[in-house]
Amino acid sequence: MIYRDIMTRPLPFDVMPWGIGLSGVDVDRLPHRESVFALSNGHIGWRGLLDEGEPHGVPGSYLNGVFEEHPMPYAEGGYGYPESGQSVINVPNGQVIRLTVDDEPLDIREGTLHDHEQHLDFRAGTLERALTWTSPAGSAVRIRSTRIVSLAHRSVAAVRYEVEAVDDPITITLQSELVANEPLPEPHPDPRVQDVLETPLRSAGSFVFDSAATLVHETRNSGIGVAVSMDHLVSGATAEVRTAASDDLARTTIRARLAFGERLEVVKIVGHAWASGISAPGLRDRAEAAVADAMRDGWTGLLAAQRERLDDFWTCADVRVDGQPRLQQAVRFALFSVFQAAARAEQRSVPGKGLTGAGYAGHTFWDFEAYVLPVLTATAPDAAREALRWRHATLDHARDRARQLHLQGAAFAWRTIDGRESSGYWPASTAAFHINADIAAAVVHYVRATGDVEFERDAGLEILVETARLWQSLGCTDADGRFHIDGVTGPDEYTALYDDNVFTNLMARANLDAAADAARRHPDLARTLGVDDGEIGGWVRTAGAMHVPYDEERGVHPQAARFTELERWDFETDTPGDELLQERYPYVQLYRKQVLKQADLVLALFFCTDAFTVDEKARAFRYYEALTVRDSSLSAAIQAVVAAEVGHLGLAADYLAEAATIDLDDLHGNAEDGLHIASLGGIWTALVAGFGGMRDTADGLRFAPRLPEQLTGLAFGIRWQGRTLHLEIAPDATTYRVSAGEPMSIRHFGEPVELTSGADVTMPTPALPDPGERPTQPKGREPRPFAEALAE
Amino acid sequence: MIYRDIMTRPLPFDVMPWGIGLSGVDVDRLPHRESVFALSNGHIGWRGLLDEGEPHGVPGSYLNGVFEEHPMPYAEGGYGYPESGQSVINVPNGQVIRLTVDDEPLDIREGTLHDHEQHLDFRAGTLERALTWTSPAGSAVRIRSTRIVSLAHRSVAAVRYEVEAVDDPITITLQSELVANEPLPEPHPDPRVQDVLETPLRSAGSFVFDSAATLVHETRNSGIGVAVSMDHLVSGATAEVRTAASDDLARTTIRARLAFGERLEVVKIVGHAWASGISAPGLRDRAEAAVADAMRDGWTGLLAAQRERLDDFWTCADVRVDGQPRLQQAVRFALFSVFQAAARAEQRSVPGKGLTGAGYAGHTFWDFEAYVLPVLTATAPDAAREALRWRHATLDHARDRARQLHLQGAAFAWRTIDGRESSGYWPASTAAFHINADIAAAVVHYVRATGDVEFERDAGLEILVETARLWQSLGCTDADGRFHIDGVTGPDEYTALYDDNVFTNLMARANLDAAADAARRHPDLARTLGVDDGEIGGWVRTAGAMHVPYDEERGVHPQAARFTELERWDFETDTPGDELLQERYPYVQLYRKQVLKQADLVLALFFCTDAFTVDEKARAFRYYEALTVRDSSLSAAIQAVVAAEVGHLGLAADYLAEAATIDLDDLHGNAEDGLHIASLGGIWTALVAGFGGMRDTADGLRFAPRLPEQLTGLAFGIRWQGRTLHLEIAPDATTYRVSAGEPMSIRHFGEPVELTSGADVTMPTPALPDPGERPTQPKGREPRPFAEALAE
Repeated sequence: MIYRDIMTRPLPFDVMPWGIGLSGVDVDRLPHRESVFALSNGHIGWRGLLDEGEPHGVPGSYLNGVFEEHPMPYAEGGYGYPESGQSVINVPNGQVIRLTVDDEPLDIREGTLHDHEQHLDFRAGTLERALTWTSPAGSAVRIRSTRIVSLAHRSVAAVRYEVEAVDDPITITLQSELVANEPLPEPHPDPRVQDVLETPLRSAGSFVFDSAATLVHETRNSGIGVAVSMDHLVSGATAEVRTAASDDLARTTIRARLAFGERLEVVKIVGHAWASGISAPGLRDRAEAAVADAMRDGWTGLLAAQRERLDDFWTCADVRVDGQPRLQQAVRFALFSVFQAAARAEQRSVPGKGLTGAGYAGHTFWDFEAYVLPVLTATAPDAAREALRWRHATLDHARDRARQLHLQGAAFAWRTIDGRESSGYWPASTAAFHINADIAAAVVHYVRATGDVEFERDAGLEILVETARLWQSLGCTDADGRFHIDGVTGPDEYTALYDDNVFTNLMARANLDAAADAARRHPDLARTLGVDDGEIGGWVRTAGAMHVPYDEERGVHPQAARFTELERWDFETDTPGDELLQERYPYVQLYRKQVLKQADLVLALFFCTDAFTVDEKARAFRYYEALTVRDSSLSAAIQAVVAAEVGHLGLAADYLAEAATIDLDDLHGNAEDGLHIASLGGIWTALVAGFGGMRDTADGLRFAPRLPEQLTGLAFGIRWQGRTLHLEIAPDATTYRVSAGEPMSIRHFGEPVELTSGADVTMPTPALPDPGERPTQPKGREPRPFAEALAE
Repeated sequence: MIYRDIMTRPLPFDVMPWGIGLSGVDVDRLPHRESVFALSNGHIGWRGLLDEGEPHGVPGSYLNGVFEEHPMPYAEGGYGYPESGQSVINVPNGQVIRLTVDDEPLDIREGTLHDHEQHLDFRAGTLERALTWTSPAGSAVRIRSTRIVSLAHRSVAAVRYEVEAVDDPITITLQSELVANEPLPEPHPDPRVQDVLETPLRSAGSFVFDSAATLVHETRNSGIGVAVSMDHLVSGATAEVRTAASDDLARTTIRARLAFGERLEVVKIVGHAWASGISAPGLRDRAEAAVADAMRDGWTGLLAAQRERLDDFWTCADVRVDGQPRLQQAVRFALFSVFQAAARAEQRSVPGKGLTGAGYAGHTFWDFEAYVLPVLTATAPDAAREALRWRHATLDHARDRARQLHLQGAAFAWRTIDGRESSGYWPASTAAFHINADIAAAVVHYVRATGDVEFERDAGLEILVETARLWQSLGCTDADGRFHIDGVTGPDEYTALYDDNVFTNLMARANLDAAADAARRHPDLARTLGVDDGEIGGWVRTAGAMHVPYDEERGVHPQAARFTELERWDFETDTPGDELLQERYPYVQLYRKQVLKQADLVLALFFCTDAFTVDEKARAFRYYEALTVRDSSLSAAIQAVVAAEVGHLGLAADYLAEAATIDLDDLHGNAEDGLHIASLGGIWTALVAGFGGMRDTADGLRFAPRLPEQLTGLAFGIRWQGRTLHLEIAPDATTYRVSAGEPMSIRHFGEPVELTSGADVTMPTPALPDPGERPTQPKGREPRPFAEALAE
């Protein structure tokens, strides 16, 4: 059986410039493939399940913002611990189209699978599938399906499903379904949570009309109403169509007799609606209206609109990588994934996994603002704005949280779906106050890159003011007038509750200065927020007094006060192996030693670039390289950026290759829970900020483009205040072009360059100063060489 | 109704020199009274429930070591988090004797309660009760009951219950019961734990023979077998006796007709047995053997043996306080409670609440070795030895835990019943490694005070060696050769995960030195533990290199590195009120500011007395006084000791008064969960180490007795290497006497004094140097003045 043959080979993805292909099926790897082949518009997420529903890895159909609440269990509770948790749940699954061929259900594990192809198309925004199958009884069919999650119609996903009789005439039955409360393969480890999440939806009605059906549900605890509706366009062969629905299942049955070569085509349009406090009929109407709207456009119209949206995105966003097809594929996959995660999120959070899986319970974290927003700001600024507006909309929760913590201003949730804190381990969440400065930095960066004054006035200023207030109340001034922020956790999750974390202090300093600047720019609005000159002066004084510890003896900035004096992790004895350190060592050991899960001070070298001299950067990078085990997917891309800046281009390339393969090669073994959206964003960052050397500071936009030997060329575009700035980087020179708009100034290796619309300016690449020996990493944690990691 | 009248008055305990009396009943305060009136021998614990079972506060009948396992819930788990928790459970309750008078059940809330007296007798070791009651129908009885938990018969508790017809003839029915799986008033907040603890016992048989019955049970998860048996001696009136038993209830029904003035007397003997891996018949035999044994002694024999044991204890242990009857009562209650908690624990743990309540789930903590063992060592050294042998018996668990944490040697459980770690919040448990040094210090102190070389060879040496190994692996030596212990938590629970906690480092230093000394004293045994000269040398070097941070600028030892540089808690704004700070502020705020729950550096001033100069002590005490809120019951006694040492005798007296009333006046509002045994031990310590100035160091025993103005005299005895050393302290002089044995040397205010058996030596009290201004406490947390706290 060909099927068996396909199953035993490890199946690599096909390398394509504008998509990801896969020939054959590897049932054991379905969970991973479903994440890679997930489609989303930021509002709806459909994992890349096989149309017929089974076999499957992890069923997943999500609506951004639909979650269930559950109790948070603690062995020993404490003041301020969240009592209620939030978990993303599956909404009724509209992907399912089961097929019966002459009374035998199509299942790729039975009969003979002659071929099976999948293709995710980054420009069409579709997932295509084609297969030829002969049933155990000998009936043969060819199937082609194409699905989209519409970027144009936010509430609509659709499938075109085509069956062809390839041999003898056959009778086929399609069951196109909406399935609610599907059982999930892995129960939650906590039975109380499992109880809640097992069947989170309670029916509020099911409705049938001709070939259409709608299911309306409500979540049991969070009180969210969800309606999912479907309708069908049947063409090709003559078919008998019947629809029925019960509480958790709606089914349209399409029966036809196909002669040899004859085809049946079904287009299934699925509409979604959710809300709190809307009646079931109201929700039903919304979902059905979405379907009706898309039905009018028809399949061709949906496809055309999809491509149009993506063409618009790629025009500026595309990153061209010359000479490395797998890297080329990876960076476009990354951009596609980031765009999918946020394109139509529209004032909802963008989860760490986007809508590609239920990992991290569907929560969003600091890395969205720190890692993903820069990509969106440069390539899809409208989506960036909407995401920041979502954060702004959670300000009341953040203010409540600050008050609960006896702090001023706002303390944004470390992990959340709707803005309320849902983290269950405070040393690595509540104490990680830097999230507030990360959000503030994203605001500053967005406003600077877009000139969007309206946003700054509507939302940005308030975020800056409330976060500045937080820092002002969180730290304290010592007898020598230095401002300290003690007992907090920086980005590195293997170091918690230290004093004066340099990343946090520098980011807070920038936050305070930015709040002061913004308040001065908008004095009228600032007054309505209760800001007076005294408060602004306080922020400026605090920023100026911010203590930044420095270890004179070693000539490096400690990650936090005393950090460089801690015991160094013994990498000779305590060899990490493949497992995460945190899975083999207790926090009490990790926290009190010099060992890093991820870039922390090195992230500061990048984000707060002007706070360090070139030499300090080089020394610090070398120092922390030897201590960083990269147990976090957030690390490699940042290490790539800083490695490139300090001249270790080969090392930067290796880190880029690692970042580029984290999801496609499932390096962390958990891509089945969904893609690492922040790490995918990091691929872009490693190229643009790493080899492009882009830094966006108050002094303007700078570049220092320098290619590693593995790349013969690199080209990318960014949106900047209404313009598109395009860079074409060759080994010896970089050509800058502004597509439209006013002239603009940038710096190329520190040298001012004036760019006028339409005119190419080519600048030479200066010689690379000797960066010294390649920095070393902990034993066993050296990155794979670029060529090996990206070998085809 | 007199009953109602009694109920509305707040009822203070009667002040008695050798007991605690209570006239009347206050149903709302029953939970507190049950803890105060609890009887225990360290093996069995019976809360002071009313004989008839109801009304009750919190039913409690415990057997030391009988617990149930339950899952430990975590919102976010981590490596090394205990998966299984342990909770003490109620064993079948043998206290219950219900009475029906002319068909009306005795309930103090109904009918007329003419008088109700309870009396806990510290010398007899009994709880007596007397009441006169008229039923709603007018039948009047007088009841006298006396119960003991036998110190002589470890497995036996007994009740003598006497009913007298005080008016007309009456018919009475007594139901003497064993009740298993009694419902508890407050469900556990975690439903998974509640499920386990609701009916933890599964019947393994019930047996009846004449007036005797036995229930055998097994715990569902921990697999512990429990047998409780009872038999009865009935005298006085003629009575009809029947016994029956089912799974969870055994009942002996005694029916009699009493003429006016006639009495029925029932002596109920209850025997207990528990074990793992013993058959139900085997357990039954053990429990019934215990009953048979006690029946032979009879009630009078039981009482006599009880008094004999207590006479023996009090001979040396009594502390006489002149001029302060309430303090006198409190200190004897404290000694009685400590003795009850440990007397017959015999290689089982002594829980934080003893066996007086289910608070802290029946776990033992570091404060047993740090606070309770010194009292036992001085007053009941056999009990001290047994408790340390229990710790020794948990060494395998402690070694397993150390290995799990990737450390050498042994890491004793922070909270446990059977030696396995059961704490659910690692920053305040696993990270509090000082428990290991506290245990080691208790070993050193015990061996020094008793000269018990056999114990040192059997158990002590191994504890010292394995804890020394822990420190050696936990800390690290810096480039300057100083040894640091970073990222740990000291005694103060409002400060966690700091570097070089002074208490921890000093205690670890002593631990390392003590291990080296002991290994050199017993080289043969040390070799069998794998100790060679190199290892000993390593300990000595590490001890010598131990870093003890000192803040030169402020002239005080910081509680931990950088502590004195942290922001000071703003006591003006963040006023504590009555609530614990931890109930109103998150750890993230508490940990990173200068605010102390309890003595930490001040505990080091006491425990590591020679590591500080007199001036350093005075400055440090003053510094930390201003920061300590005493949200822990462990604090006041230690503050009393150090206040006395630095000359603030009035303040010391106030702290002593606070310690003395924590349980009797229920200052923390949680005495219903059981008594604070460590804090009770602290009352003794505040007197003996505070006003007696006793310090036990490697250089010998020292005293610096000095009375506050509130005391006209203080006398106490301690056991010292087979002798009894007695001190009689007057304001101007102290008289020392050694009761027996070899001469011994002590120091009186630094001056050597030779003491010979039987000869009084009187030494004058030197003039008190000016201690300066009385140190101040955080606003609202000043101790109540002595006179007010101990007003009668």
